[in-house]
Parts: sequence; structure tokens; C-alpha cells
Amino acid sequence: MSYMGFRCLEISRWVVCGLIGLLTGLIACFIDIVVENLAGVKYLVVKQNIEKFTEVGGLSISLILWAVLNSTFVLVGSVIVASLQPIAAGSGIPQIKCYLNGVKIPRVVRLKTLVVKVCGVICSVVGGLAVGKEGPMIHSGAVVAAGVSQGRSTSLKKDFKIFEYFRRDTEKRDFVSAGAAAGVSAAFGAPVGGVLFSLEEGASFWNQMLTWRIFFASMMSTFTLNFFLSVYHGNAGDLSNPGLINFGRFESDSVAYNWYEIPIFIGMGALGGILGALFNVLNYWLTIFRIRYIHRPCLQVMEAILVAAVTATVSFAMIYFSNDCQPLGEDQSEDYPLQLFCADGEYNSMATAVFNTPERSVRSLFHNAAGSYNPLTLGIFTLNYFFLACWTYGLTVSAGVFIPSLLIGAAWGRLFGILLATLTPSGSTWANPGKYALMGAAAQLGGIVRMTLSLTVIMVEATGNVTYGLPIMLVLMTAKIVGDYFVEGLYDIHIKLQSVPFLHWEAPATSHSLTAREVMSSPVTSFNRVEKVGTIVDILSNTATNHNGFPVVNEFIDRNEPGKICGLILRSQLMCS
Amino acid sequence: MSYMGFRCLEISRWVVCGLIGLLTGLIACFIDIVVENLAGVKYLVVKQNIEKFTEVGGLSISLILWAVLNSTFVLVGSVIVASLQPIAAGSGIPQIKCYLNGVKIPRVVRLKTLVVKVCGVICSVVGGLAVGKEGPMIHSGAVVAAGVSQGRSTSLKKDFKIFEYFRRDTEKRDFVSAGAAAGVSAAFGAPVGGVLFSLEEGASFWNQMLTWRIFFASMMSTFTLNFFLSVYHGNAGDLSNPGLINFGRFESDSVAYNWYEIPIFIGMGALGGILGALFNVLNYWLTIFRIRYIHRPCLQVMEAILVAAVTATVSFAMIYFSNDCQPLGEDQSEDYPLQLFCADGEYNSMATAVFNTPERSVRSLFHNAAGSYNPLTLGIFTLNYFFLACWTYGLTVSAGVFIPSLLIGAAWGRLFGILLATLTPSGSTWANPGKYALMGAAAQLGGIVRMTLSLTVIMVEATGNVTYGLPIMLVLMTAKIVGDYFVEGLYDIHIKLQSVPFLHWEAPATSHSLTAREVMSSPVTSFNRVEKVGTIVDILSNTATNHNGFPVVNEFIDRNEPGKICGLILRSQLMCS
Repeated sequence: MSYMGFRCLEISRWVVCGLIGLLTGLIACFIDIVVENLAGVKYLVVKQNIEKFTEVGGLSISLILWAVLNSTFVLVGSVIVASLQPIAAGSGIPQIKCYLNGVKIPRVVRLKTLVVKVCGVICSVVGGLAVGKEGPMIHSGAVVAAGVSQGRSTSLKKDFKIFEYFRRDTEKRDFVSAGAAAGVSAAFGAPVGGVLFSLEEGASFWNQMLTWRIFFASMMSTFTLNFFLSVYHGNAGDLSNPGLINFGRFESDSVAYNWYEIPIFIGMGALGGILGALFNVLNYWLTIFRIRYIHRPCLQVMEAILVAAVTATVSFAMIYFSNDCQPLGEDQSEDYPLQLFCADGEYNSMATAVFNTPERSVRSLFHNAAGSYNPLTLGIFTLNYFFLACWTYGLTVSAGVFIPSLLIGAAWGRLFGILLATLTPSGSTWANPGKYALMGAAAQLGGIVRMTLSLTVIMVEATGNVTYGLPIMLVLMTAKIVGDYFVEGLYDIHIKLQSVPFLHWEAPATSHSLTAREVMSSPVTSFNRVEKVGTIVDILSNTATNHNGFPVVNEFIDRNEPGKICGLILRSQLMCS
Repeated sequence: MSYMGFRCLEISRWVVCGLIGLLTGLIACFIDIVVENLAGVKYLVVKQNIEKFTEVGGLSISLILWAVLNSTFVLVGSVIVASLQPIAAGSGIPQIKCYLNGVKIPRVVRLKTLVVKVCGVICSVVGGLAVGKEGPMIHSGAVVAAGVSQGRSTSLKKDFKIFEYFRRDTEKRDFVSAGAAAGVSAAFGAPVGGVLFSLEEGASFWNQMLTWRIFFASMMSTFTLNFFLSVYHGNAGDLSNPGLINFGRFESDSVAYNWYEIPIFIGMGALGGILGALFNVLNYWLTIFRIRYIHRPCLQVMEAILVAAVTATVSFAMIYFSNDCQPLGEDQSEDYPLQLFCADGEYNSMATAVFNTPERSVRSLFHNAAGSYNPLTLGIFTLNYFFLACWTYGLTVSAGVFIPSLLIGAAWGRLFGILLATLTPSGSTWANPGKYALMGAAAQLGGIVRMTLSLTVIMVEATGNVTYGLPIMLVLMTAKIVGDYFVEGLYDIHIKLQSVPFLHWEAPATSHSLTAREVMSSPVTSFNRVEKVGTIVDILSNTATNHNGFPVVNEFIDRNEPGKICGLILRSQLMCS
């Protein structure tokens, strides 16, 4: 290839990455606006109904209306996923992890998957399930990347005859990692976190130009989302909403931490690890149950509707039996206040926690002044939401687990902070509940998904405060270490249950005493140093079927890097051939 | 190695990284406190003197006092560097780049180098040279890392007999990259930027655990610096000074940018690239002159003193001829106001720009309200500081080029913003000069050092605002592209002038039409596939001397990654043997 051709290719790569960022940002913007509007409509309908029937004691009608509304949304979301594209279920992060790891899962980066995913996630979030819209953004970004970089769509059967040079596995994977980064960036307003996510999940080599392009895609996606949301909200140019979720800024002055709180945070990390492991174990059993008994689409849809109805009922019951009335602040910080049985000028704080989108609830748990939530509300909310979120993950709907995890953690973290403030002498001066809500959220999320480096950066970027970096990092590490003692991370569990031969960074502990002989089948199939293509194809097609991708090649390689990479390359070629 | 031994090693690696972060943070803290105190004393002495002699018109006495004070500090700093450890001169970043690239430069990570570096940088900053203390932090972190991880010191001739497993090139280099990251992190309060700096300069592989440890070291160093500075400033727990330089927070609400400003920023990037290239070309000629004529230590010391005296004189002249009086704000935002010929209640803004530590000047250029500086002051300041900084870099003193570059850029950026506000209709409503100062600083720094990815993240972290990420990135990219058109980056120029065989990420443009035959010497020396160690040692020792490290092996390898890495490994082994 000539020098000029090489430069042209390089420029096309940049253009493609810019487009990926732009489109991913637009998708995030679309999801956000649609969800906000539908949720607003739903809130208005239910509120009017509740206000009408509170007087005559007919709250059960409101409950039924609410449950039916939610179930309808979930029904739609679940039907399109189950019937059109089952691979669009869940957050999509396990699938993207596999894809970046070199394992090609069929239909995972198709346009049809994207459409189903976007519609599905809107339905499930508006349907009031304990889910988030952030995980699916990562999948959406990856699909956009695959589509744009290949210049063709299998779903539309259309080939634009552009970027034909990029139609090879390595190039496509590079772009998909840029897309995943753009997705993270749009979801959390964390472009650097997105880059690190892609590196953590996908990279074996550090390639400066590639990383730089990934970063460009991330920046573009954050900027696009931010810009269009600011235009939508009528204050174009105020670029202060970089992501779908915005934790609000933690100011160092008001909620600083002291060095003696660091051991407390680490303790919270351990607690998060234990709770996360419990979540994962419960979800593991549930998923096995689902694989065995709920594999027909109609059953899957019915389960989703059941979960939606139960979620609505439980939420309603929590509101009904809660008597946590808070005065309505002058600043109207709550967008959806519900009076219910509270006195005039007050609102029911449980109703706020339930009715808000989960993103808003997380933010209010982080930032509302001490005393906004009473401990009982938080305790009951944590307990219920924990089991609801656990039941929900793995349903045949498009939905992420990031936000529910953050919400559970923020709730028990805030509870922990309140207890600390009341139980310790002078605790009320330093134990700001918002700070503990943040640490709890990090601990719970770390305990469930076990991401470390990228999650730290995502949390730091989302809080906009670098001084919280060290405690967040320690919390996430503790949560990972404690959680790993019991069970794997949620994504790894689901990858394993889908029988994908995933290559981890480190060999499993048991493999240190194993020799290759003990896991290999005999007779050994081997190739000559120089081999005919026909022979390789023959052997691959005759033997690959019964164990799905020669995992033996990689699983028992030493930490020696070059070996590992050769294994990776070999594996990905075998998988893709 | 057993599984337990493996785990123990892993834990020791973490402990070492924690220690590296802790010690690097402490060093940064020490430098900061000493510089602040000495600069305060110097300011008081000169101020009293100026006030005493302004009346009787004997300002020349003040000038002489000032020049002598500055020259004395620089004399001390220059003498210890020239006589004790010449490798400690400059910022140390080129040397660390080389080290991480696999090229061992003698004495670069010795304890003696660290001591000289720290004392030298204190002297040159207090001596009023146009230098920063940030670059040397990266070198200091690297030395700390090499010392701690090897458990021995060549300078002290002491061996603690610990961490003996880490006494091999790969392990040591991993720790040194952690140290460099910790240095960046302490300098700019940018732990993620530090990690990316290390990856950008040193890594060929992406190793998750290593990256995670590097991140831990960075976090520890930021936290340590922040904690001890907060204790020193008497408000322990207020962790809001994460780095040596703090750009102050850019709030999105007050200094937001509009999308139509992005092309303007890109234009500033191009200007920064041109100015940076000019800086580099001038410095290149100067360095060649220095290599030819100023190679004896006493001449080097004399040149340093001359620069210090000229710097003081020029600064004094600028203050003397400046009549830019600004009202003294009620908030006392200026720490070192000088009244001079101004009316009561006013201060001389040129004197502020000159007398402040460069870090404070940068911050006030970013954040002072519109109108704090008049255009003439800024223009003269830019012009003088540009040539002073260019003359200063490469002197036999320990000093970095980051802060002078930022300062030059901030000055012309602010000037640009002021012109924009006056020359365009309605410009005064959107053209906030602080915003343009930030972009100018990024453009100038990018044009001089040509770092891209890590610099973007460093700037974003230092401004504490992720929404500035995209324009900063575009500015840095433009500056790099435009600058590369004329001349290489400053560090690369100095690496080349020191005849270090540095391996770049991409092969030079001319090599696309070259074949290996044209650059190889004949007869070709080659090894058999299996070779005796003795033969290899013989051939290496007989042939390595005349061309210093087989650069041919790497320079002409394709972009194909595995090949490049094999080249790297081969090279680093050859270099280190």
C-alpha cells in the first residue's frame, strides 16, 4: 500500500469514529427524551387517578391502573425482544465483552438488534421495572460501530460499497471497541471511562492511534448527547449534562471525607461484595431455572408481565404503608412529588423514590440534605428493590443492571450513613449521608459486576470530583476481592451460562496445579508448521463442533504475555473461521 | 512457582506501588511547601525594598537586589546539577520516555539524581526562571519507583535484601512506569492522566493488573499530596488541591462554550502548533549551540546565572514600563499585589503576572474577570516570556517546560479572547477571556510537547470539567498536526540530540519507500534459530559498540503489531544486555 493510501485509510478511520460517536450520542439522546416524556405522562395519569380516589379510599383502582400501564409497556418491550431478536435481551454487556474478546456471537451487532434494543429499553424503563438504560447503550454503540464501519447492513440487505477495506475481523473489532466506548461515554458522561472500559474488556495490545480514535468517538458521543439535550431543554450551549445519568457534582468543600473514614469505606466495600455475591448467586439459580423451564417466548413474555405487575404492586404497597412525609422544599428539587396521605406542603418520600426514574432517585439519594429520607423507608426500599432487581435481570427485556445496583447501594449506603451519624459521637458533623450513599453505590455495583479500573474512572467522572477517586477505588477493589471469594461477577456468570468460551485475564486458580494433559482429549489433533488450507478447514469443521472453539489452547497458558497473545490470536482465528 | 508464592508476589507488587505513590506525593508536597515559603520570603524582601526606594527614584537598587537574589538561587541549583549529576538537568521527561521505551540511560534512576533534581527544581523555580516544577515530578516519581522496587540504592551502596524477585528489567520498568504516573498525578492532580501518560509512553501490551497497580500508585500520590497540603494549610480534610498545579474549576454554567466557537478553537490550535514549532526550532538551534560551545560545567553555570539575571531584568523592565493598574479586589484574589506607581487601592497587574509563581499566573489568566489584564500587558508578557522560556529550556538546571508553555499560551489565548470580544459584534457576551486562555494554553503546550491522549486527560482533570474535553482534544490534535508539519516535538528533539535510539509508534514517513537493504550494513550478522549464549554475547559485544543498539531491527517493521512487539522485546534485550 502506498503512503498516500495509508494516510487516506487513517483519515477514513477517524471519520468513521466521529460518525460512531455522533450516532451513539443521538441514540442516547433519543432514548432519554422518549423515556422522560413517557414517564412524565405516566406519572400525570397515575397522579390524577390517585388524587381522585384517595378521598373515597379506592386506591386499589389506582393500583390496578398503574400495574396495567406498566405491564402494557413491559408486554410490548418483551414481545418485540422475544419474537424479533432474543439476543437483544439483557444489558448486552456480556455479549459485547465476548465480541471484544474475539468470540463471534451470531446477530449481536445487527441493525435489527439495535432497533429492538432501543425500543425494548424504552419500554422496560417506562414500564417501571428495576432496570437502567445505561447498559444497553454500550451494546447500541457497538452495533452502530459495526454498521458504520462495514458500510453495509445485513438486516437491511443493503451494501453501500464504502469502507470495504475495513471488512475484516481485526478492523471491525477495533471499531466495535470504539462504539462500546462511545456507549459508555454517552451513558455516564465518562469519555475516559469509556476508553478504559474498551481497553479493559477488549485490548491485548496498547495501540496509541487506536486508543486515540476510541477517545475521539467517546468525546463525540458525550458532546452530541450533551448538545442535543441542551437544545431540547431550551438552554442550548449549557453543556452540563454529559451523560444519561448525572450523579450531580460532589463538591470537595461540602462533602469532603476524612482519612479516618477510609477504613469505614473499605468495610462498606466488603459489605457490597457480600451483597453483590448474594445477588449474583440468586440470579444464577434464577437463570438456571429460566434456562430449564422458561425457554418458550410466550412463557418469557408472561414472566416479564408478572414481574412488571409485582413491581408495581410492591412499590404501591411500600408507598401505602410508608408514612415518611417530608416538607416540600422551596427549590422544588423533586420533579414528581406525591402528596398522598401527607399534610399539605409535604410529600411522601417513598413515593418519590419509587416514582422517579431510577437515575433521579440515585441523584437524590446522593445529594438530598440529611434527613430527607428516614431510615425505615431506606431499609424497606433496599430490601424490596434488591429482590426485584435480582428477579428482573435476565428477563426477556432489554435492560441494564448498572442503575438498579447503584440504587440499591445508594439506599443502603445512605442508611449506613444515617446510622453512623446517630450512633457515633459527633458523627452528625462528618457523616454526610450523601457521601455514604455514593460509597454504597460503588460497593454494590462493584460487588455485582466486578469491574474495577474502568468503573473507578466512570464513577470519578460521573461525580466530577477527583478527590473521591482513592476511596472509590479502594471500595471497588474490596468489593471485587470479597465478592470473588464467593462467586464470579454477574456478567461472567451469564457468559458461562451461555456456554461462551471466554478467555479471562488470569488463568483460574485451580489451573495452577493442572497440566495440559489432564484436560486435553486424545488423540491430539495437531498441524504441521506449514499446512494446506484444505487440511486446516477439514480438521476445524470435523472437530470444532463438539467442543465449540478449542478453549484448551488458551485456558492454560502462563502469564507470559506473548504466549497469551498468540493464544488469543489463534483462538479468534479459530472462532471466526 | 507455587500458587501461594505467586499471590505473595502480587501482594508485594501492590505494596510497592502504594509506597511509590506515597513517597512521590510526599516529595511533591515537600517541593511545593519549600517553594511557596522561599518565594514568599523573596517577595517580602523585594517588596519592602521597592517600597523603600520608589520614593527616591532608586529603583535600580531594587532591580539589582532582585537580580542578585534570583541569580544566587539559580547559581546554587545550577552548580549542584552541573557538578553532581548532569543527568538531573531539564525536565527529565525525555529520559523517562527513553527508559520506558527500553533504552537504559546511565544514572537516570539513581537516588542521587533524585536529590539533585528536587533541590535543583526548588532553586530554579524560586530563582524566578521561566520554568515549572511539574516535569521534574515525573522524573522524581520514576526514581522513587526504581529505588523502592529494587530494595537497594546504588548511590547509598545499601542493599535491603527485599523484593529481590523484582530485580529484572521487565519488573523494574513496570514499576518505573507506575512511578512516572504517580509523578504526573502529583503534578497535575490527574491520576487517570498519569496512567495514560505511562501507557502512551511506555506500554506495548495492555496488562490489566499492571494498569490497575499504576492507577493505584497515581491515586495514592494525589491523595498523599492533597492530604499533607491540606494539613499544612490548616484545613485538614479539605481535599481540594489534588495537584501541584490547580487550574481552578471551570464551571459549565459561567464559561460554557457554544458549538460555533469550536472552529475558532481549532484555529487557535493551529496557531499553537505554529508557535510551538517556532519554539522548538529556536530551542533546537540553541541546544546545538550549547552542545558545541557550552559543554564545560563552569560555562553552563555562568549561562544559567546570565539567564536568571536577564529574566529578572526583563521582568523588572516590563513592570517599570507597564502602567496597567487594576483595582485591588475585595476578595484579595491576588496573593502578591504590588502597588508601585499605581494609585492607592490599585495594583500593577504586570507585576502580579511576573511576581506570582507561574502556577498562580496561569490560574489568574484562566479565571480573573474580564478586564483584569489589558491587551498590551498580555502582548508584551507573551513575547518576552516566549523567548525567555525558550532560552531557559535546556539550561543546566532542573526544570520543566509544562508551566511556561501553559503560561505563554494562556497569555496569548486571553489576548485572543479580548480581541475577539472587542472586534466581533456581541462578542463580549460569549467570548469569555478565561475560556480562550485555557484553549491557548492547551494549544501552546500541545504545539511544544506534542502529547495528545494523556495531555487531553490531564487538562480535563485539571479543569475538573468533562465538557471541555472535546474542544481541548481538537485543539491538541490540531496543534500536533500543524506542529508536526514543521518540526518534531521538543522532547523528541532532545532525545535525538542526545543520540538515543528511540523507537516511535510509527515508522518515519520516508521509510515507506525504503527497503531494509538500503540501511543495513554488510555483511549481515545473524543468529541461528538455536544459538549458544556465548556466541550471542560475543556477537553483541563485538558489534553493538559501533551503532549502539541495533536500531535497524525495529525502525522498518510494518504496522503489524506482533512483529513490532517482537522487535521491541528483541531491542530491549539487546539494549539491556
